[in-house]
Amino acid sequence: MRRLSTTEADFEVSFSALLAGRGGQERSVVEPVRAILSDVQARGDAAVCDYTARFDRLTLTPEQLRIDADTIKSEAARVPTDLMDALKLAAERIEVFHDAQKPTDLDFTDSAGVRLGMRWTALDAVGLYVPGGKAAYPSSVLMNALPARVAGVKRLAMCVPTPDGVLNPLVLAAAHLCGVEEIYRVGGAQAVGALAYGTQTIAPVDRIVGPGNAFVAEAKRQVFGQVGIDSIAGPSEVVVVADGNNDPRLIAVDLLAQAEHDEQAQAILITTDSAFGERVGTAVATELETLPRAAIAARSWADHGAIIVVKDLDEAAELVNRLAPEHLEVLVERPRDFSALVRHAGAMFLGRHCPEAVGDYVGGPNHVLPTSRTARFASGLSVFDFIKRTTIIETDQAGLERIGPAGVALAQAEGLDAHALSLSLRLGQKS
Amino acid sequence: MRRLSTTEADFEVSFSALLAGRGGQERSVVEPVRAILSDVQARGDAAVCDYTARFDRLTLTPEQLRIDADTIKSEAARVPTDLMDALKLAAERIEVFHDAQKPTDLDFTDSAGVRLGMRWTALDAVGLYVPGGKAAYPSSVLMNALPARVAGVKRLAMCVPTPDGVLNPLVLAAAHLCGVEEIYRVGGAQAVGALAYGTQTIAPVDRIVGPGNAFVAEAKRQVFGQVGIDSIAGPSEVVVVADGNNDPRLIAVDLLAQAEHDEQAQAILITTDSAFGERVGTAVATELETLPRAAIAARSWADHGAIIVVKDLDEAAELVNRLAPEHLEVLVERPRDFSALVRHAGAMFLGRHCPEAVGDYVGGPNHVLPTSRTARFASGLSVFDFIKRTTIIETDQAGLERIGPAGVALAQAEGLDAHALSLSLRLGQKS
Repeated sequence: MRRLSTTEADFEVSFSALLAGRGGQERSVVEPVRAILSDVQARGDAAVCDYTARFDRLTLTPEQLRIDADTIKSEAARVPTDLMDALKLAAERIEVFHDAQKPTDLDFTDSAGVRLGMRWTALDAVGLYVPGGKAAYPSSVLMNALPARVAGVKRLAMCVPTPDGVLNPLVLAAAHLCGVEEIYRVGGAQAVGALAYGTQTIAPVDRIVGPGNAFVAEAKRQVFGQVGIDSIAGPSEVVVVADGNNDPRLIAVDLLAQAEHDEQAQAILITTDSAFGERVGTAVATELETLPRAAIAARSWADHGAIIVVKDLDEAAELVNRLAPEHLEVLVERPRDFSALVRHAGAMFLGRHCPEAVGDYVGGPNHVLPTSRTARFASGLSVFDFIKRTTIIETDQAGLERIGPAGVALAQAEGLDAHALSLSLRLGQKS
Repeated sequence: MRRLSTTEADFEVSFSALLAGRGGQERSVVEPVRAILSDVQARGDAAVCDYTARFDRLTLTPEQLRIDADTIKSEAARVPTDLMDALKLAAERIEVFHDAQKPTDLDFTDSAGVRLGMRWTALDAVGLYVPGGKAAYPSSVLMNALPARVAGVKRLAMCVPTPDGVLNPLVLAAAHLCGVEEIYRVGGAQAVGALAYGTQTIAPVDRIVGPGNAFVAEAKRQVFGQVGIDSIAGPSEVVVVADGNNDPRLIAVDLLAQAEHDEQAQAILITTDSAFGERVGTAVATELETLPRAAIAARSWADHGAIIVVKDLDEAAELVNRLAPEHLEVLVERPRDFSALVRHAGAMFLGRHCPEAVGDYVGGPNHVLPTSRTARFASGLSVFDFIKRTTIIETDQAGLERIGPAGVALAQAEGLDAHALSLSLRLGQKS
């Protein structure tokens, strides 16, 4: 963990080190992924079954790729009622928030008498990748599937690897809750290839979303263009802005909630109170003694954690904007005022009663957020990922007479004579 | 040019050939681009100057990379007044339409008493790539720069190659009109690298937009993640849906306006009137005899053009949705009714008086649109490319009591104990 203070001479050097990327693209998987994708494109189901046997130690016929409806139901039924209720509460809240996100169409006639419009339509088909093993989070299923459903996507196809054939009841229950019925027990680059190019069994989709390992991330990168993809997630981060009027243990736990995700995760405290910062540092050490995922969290905190002491909240806001964090907690007297100073953050959690974990599960907004400073230009997953725009221009002869001549001049200047002709032939016609 | 009819037995085979990709990723540039980007990242201005000398035959010092304000002004002044007026009309219309696109923020308190929000903010800095030589279109400068300006982006940095030092007055005039004052005479992968990583002279940006050759496209692909990028444009296409009640020459010219862009461009007529289709085919041949860019347009029409005869407009709409064209012209009796059947298209042009060229220059909506069937999942350039969302959750103790327990249950089920603890420690506290 680094201790920084804006009053120290070497602050800029230390702070810049925090901005440097963690992790990064795994170059070694580029060629293996290319080979798998070509093979899936060429051989379809046969290739998908071969790779599933090799990587997941699971021998399947093409007919067995899809998990049948009875299996989904019976696996989902194994989830305890209280947990099912928690999933339902989360799902309801996610639906309400994403429904409120839906944008409106444009349709207006402008001063030249030209009718202009913009219409939002849903994608036809979306592929949802869900990782297998320990990183299979039911909350991620909700966060990826529900915005697509709310957007009006008709077909949602899910791929989830089941190493050694072991199914994850929580993931299947979450999918079932979201109305996802087309689920394949396939993972890795072969799943991405199947969703992008289609096979005899798996129809192609228009966009693939969901987290995955280095193979999955690289496969998404390579099929981009053939289909749309979501952003490629890097390691997660939180910045906590807190004054001295907080319980150090709560802040410590909030920082560790980020650190426990991944050794490359980053948790940063920015505080106006130097002594409070020290108390949080001590509390982190204490909590690490009992935290089940202490090995991961301790590594993250040691390598990427930081406590930054600032003069005032204006200075804190400036650093937040440079960090452009995925998650920002604000535990100060007037959190709403502070939030107005923030230009770049994936998601903000305001007030002393609102830890980031609220947003991971039951807040309503999406927990798939821009990592590694990409909040400078990117946004969290939303309804906008599952809809697209068509612009519309409609004009009569009178409108064309008003705007057409300028179009002719520009087309001629650009040397595009058929463009110019398609306008000029229509000018001076009777309506 | 292919002639297709939905009543023929081999229709599906012929139609599928139209759907196949034209062009595609140029693999041979991957390694050269990687080398250029690494070099620019390592050596900054020195590398940029070296590549500019090598590729553009132009020797510059770092101080000369930027085009000074006086040069921009004096070059812009060389543009004739009528052309300048045409640019201004186009700019005004683009501004009005993109201003209407700006979305609204969300801020509401939900049934659990939790305040939820979503806030749109502009990117800080955007890089605009403008190709040199013949593909340097002033209209593209407007279409890329103005949405960024309307979105509220403060810094717009433009890169345009000037082979042999030759400046393009029209491009500089368009930039000047958009208020772009930071312009560098640099192109290719070295420009993309400079904008993404920054050099001693060129500060890094957050997103790079604008068209370019294979080197530029590959460079954008490689810097994606470090910065945002727009979609990587493929060859352009138009689908014209027309009944027999049209002048065949007008339809022929509309098709050729697409074909004259590029030998890989695609122009397709879908008509309910077989005899009319034949007349359009004849008219295309006639127009090609006098069209200045006939060599390009004829190649495009021969290799990728098509006339498809359909039974009725419902069938036409179905084919349009499978083609998901960048541009769609609708010249039928009730174009608005037809447009309601279209789910996938980048931009629609409705009515007999509204050729696609209107949208290239003076319509108002953007002319940077999703090509090569990506309208299935992608949209044209817009204000949305230059803003991003921050979600906001704020709750008091009472709200946390209502939603927190479900969060604890889910965090425990996912094995993330610090997440659970950050919630449970706050439950049961006094407010």
